[in-house]
Amino acid sequence: MLKNLKEQVWQANLDLVKFNLVILTFGNVSGFDRRRGLLAIKPSGVSYEDLRPIDILVVDLDGKVVEGKLNPSSDTPTHIELYKAFPEIGGISHAHSVYATAFAQAVKEIPCFGTTHADQFNGPVPVTRFLTRKEVRADYEGNTGKVIIERFAGIKPLEMPAVLVAGHGPFSWGRTPEEAVQNNLVLENVAKMALLTRLANPKITDLPGYILNKHYQRKHGPQAYYGQKTRSHHK
Amino acid sequence: MLKNLKEQVWQANLDLVKFNLVILTFGNVSGFDRRRGLLAIKPSGVSYEDLRPIDILVVDLDGKVVEGKLNPSSDTPTHIELYKAFPEIGGISHAHSVYATAFAQAVKEIPCFGTTHADQFNGPVPVTRFLTRKEVRADYEGNTGKVIIERFAGIKPLEMPAVLVAGHGPFSWGRTPEEAVQNNLVLENVAKMALLTRLANPKITDLPGYILNKHYQRKHGPQAYYGQKTRSHHK
Amino acid sequence: MLKNLKEQVWQANLDLVKFNLVILTFGNVSGFDRRRGLLAIKPSGVSYEDLRPIDILVVDLDGKVVEGKLNPSSDTPTHIELYKAFPEIGGISHAHSVYATAFAQAVKEIPCFGTTHADQFNGPVPVTRFLTRKEVRADYEGNTGKVIIERFAGIKPLEMPAVLVAGHGPFSWGRTPEEAVQNNLVLENVAKMALLTRLANPKITDLPGYILNKHYQRKHGPQAYYGQKTRSHHK
Amino acid sequence: MLKNLKEQVWQANLDLVKFNLVILTFGNVSGFDRRRGLLAIKPSGVSYEDLRPIDILVVDLDGKVVEGKLNPSSDTPTHIELYKAFPEIGGISHAHSVYATAFAQAVKEIPCFGTTHADQFNGPVPVTRFLTRKEVRADYEGNTGKVIIERFAGIKPLEMPAVLVAGHGPFSWGRTPEEAVQNNLVLENVAKMALLTRLANPKITDLPGYILNKHYQRKHGPQAYYGQKTRSHHK
Repeated sequence: MLKNLKEQVWQANLDLVKFNLVILTFGNVSGFDRRRGLLAIKPSGVSYEDLRPIDILVVDLDGKVVEGKLNPSSDTPTHIELYKAFPEIGGISHAHSVYATAFAQAVKEIPCFGTTHADQFNGPVPVTRFLTRKEVRADYEGNTGKVIIERFAGIKPLEMPAVLVAGHGPFSWGRTPEEAVQNNLVLENVAKMALLTRLANPKITDLPGYILNKHYQRKHGPQAYYGQKTRSHHK
Repeated sequence: MLKNLKEQVWQANLDLVKFNLVILTFGNVSGFDRRRGLLAIKPSGVSYEDLRPIDILVVDLDGKVVEGKLNPSSDTPTHIELYKAFPEIGGISHAHSVYATAFAQAVKEIPCFGTTHADQFNGPVPVTRFLTRKEVRADYEGNTGKVIIERFAGIKPLEMPAVLVAGHGPFSWGRTPEEAVQNNLVLENVAKMALLTRLANPKITDLPGYILNKHYQRKHGPQAYYGQKTRSHHK
Repeated sequence: MLKNLKEQVWQANLDLVKFNLVILTFGNVSGFDRRRGLLAIKPSGVSYEDLRPIDILVVDLDGKVVEGKLNPSSDTPTHIELYKAFPEIGGISHAHSVYATAFAQAVKEIPCFGTTHADQFNGPVPVTRFLTRKEVRADYEGNTGKVIIERFAGIKPLEMPAVLVAGHGPFSWGRTPEEAVQNNLVLENVAKMALLTRLANPKITDLPGYILNKHYQRKHGPQAYYGQKTRSHHK
Repeated sequence: MLKNLKEQVWQANLDLVKFNLVILTFGNVSGFDRRRGLLAIKPSGVSYEDLRPIDILVVDLDGKVVEGKLNPSSDTPTHIELYKAFPEIGGISHAHSVYATAFAQAVKEIPCFGTTHADQFNGPVPVTRFLTRKEVRADYEGNTGKVIIERFAGIKPLEMPAVLVAGHGPFSWGRTPEEAVQNNLVLENVAKMALLTRLANPKITDLPGYILNKHYQRKHGPQAYYGQKTRSHHK
């Protein structure tokens, strides 16, 4: 079932390790088959070294395991909320990568200081509010998805393929699981650069909007000319 | 003698290298066979590249070498004090990993700024006082264990599986040597994140207690639902 | 066509990965055959793992692809401007390496605090102004080259083989593609050291000029005595 | 000639790469045969990948090459001065490692904040003054050695096996080339920890002297009990 998607999700989870975005069993990536309404997601707390494609769970939008013997990631309800709210996305990545998590813990958005950022994110990377005590008690993981969605009112998910959850860490996404993880990597890179930029010049202000726009559009706009036409222009 | 435990301790010592927690011969991991009252521990000053399972020493609770030809780690008396005082633990790791050691040298506890921390440590990671001149002279390594135990009055060792010794560095522990080293790795990660969080926002305050509690409990509480039931929920 | 140069450019692009100067498909290196007026450059958005020497494009000074099936790097017009303006250079490297990019985003030149810097760069590494809205609209990549050239009025390109483009990142160059990438690596190293130097002593001032001069001249001056006579003294 | 020493020096130079203390051809290690009054040292500007034991030069105390076809390291006169002034040492390492160089550029000694430092260095790591214009002009490399020796008046070289040269970087030494490089690695580690310690607590003061002393003595004093008796207690 969803053999191809499970392979992609398995590979994307291993990319978290390759890109140094996770330690131990932390982090999880999923992929979504929108036609069938099913997601493929990493099992909870299984080490990346032991992970096989067959271990990837298939889960429906009610959170019920449709295929697989292990427990799915405890963050599965967050993934489900995002797939339901963001019709453009096909993959989600969640990793407690160090610099992006530092901004999430600092409850600070990542300002756009340069074109590395503008190439991938069309503006500052937003940060959610903290969940309330009630939201935590009622449905912690589901409500984590809901505060993200609340923060994304008026923002197009593919133009801003990442968010920082206050006191927690980043979630990123894309059209595929592979893209979701790549956006996670770029986010981590951009977070590190932003922190160092402020250290090098505490008074620095954001990149002029017309440069941000130029870079974002040359890679993702209707007249994008970055990359190869025969490949995804995200690659 | 204790062949299995010695293998585990050997492997856990190599994990210190794999996780980039040590340089040269620094750092040591032990495991405890509580039924027999014997610990298995790394020899002092032997390089990880040369280390074999047969080099691991077996030592009793009086510090006497029961098996093995080399000298045990000079920190052995610290390990012994901790095994005697904390009946829940079966492994101890000590490494001068850079960020955790920086907090120990700064004589500052590691505040809980986010869920990465809350997933493993039920509150800020405590720091001991400095040993007195007298304590250093009388029994430096044994008293290092004793100031840790003094600091842990009222704290459950498995809920807070790490400590910072002032001016020295971290000790971590767990139910097994493997867990002790994993906690060392998480500690290092969490220390780095905490330092960067303060750089990103010097005014940040601790994670709300109800989120700390939620994350700690979902992984370690009686109704923990992180991980797989057939495995340790610590993995 | 230009088989040898294409091999060099391919190898120099892989060095960006080896030296940890790039993530994903970011970054590009070119080489210039000045006699023929042709440059060899990386294709746009192709991953380094997939890159083969045959994928390297040959482009003339008008930006027309003379050989190759893929699209050349979107930064090709910047490279062309630099080859036209700087007759001494034969290779250009562009990577969003973290520390050098932080200085570019901070719109701060990299001060010369020590001999590591002086060994490669004869003074502080300059930073350009931002492109104007008009310049971005008219010919973004070409004008990126032009603001670099504007900033280099009175500076010899081989004495200062790198620049920071404000809000963007570094470009570096040399007599060969290999040298261009090596200068990129040294630049990244020197940027990191400069940032840490200021953290260690916020009041530090620049290296005395006579020491800067001594180090630069012993490696690159007419009486240079660093390195081997039978090799490039840049190696 | 000096085949064994040349092998050791070759290996110690490769350790600079293994320990991430150098980039490109930067850095050099030498070893000294005190009976013969000859040193073995790395050739200048040769890449570590190409370096073979046969490339290591043998040089006498007047700086004359006694064996070998390449030019010796341009820093050879500094090494010679140190071997002449410090009769206890048998190996010297010089690398522009990032954190130690940052302290050297900041013209700040590395304070002793903890036992990692105290295990290897019996006090703060000293920094020299800048060379004068005259000293640079007359004999730059030789005078670099002399300002180190000037700074070490009253300091025992094996109790403080490293120094920071202002605006330049660290030199370290030991009884063998291997020890010299290990001290370089510890120095880099200790420099990083010191910088992070200050970030974590700007008001922190030095480690109490009686703890510094205890750690230094347990590893290097007459009653040292760290390590194995059958091995060097430095290992």
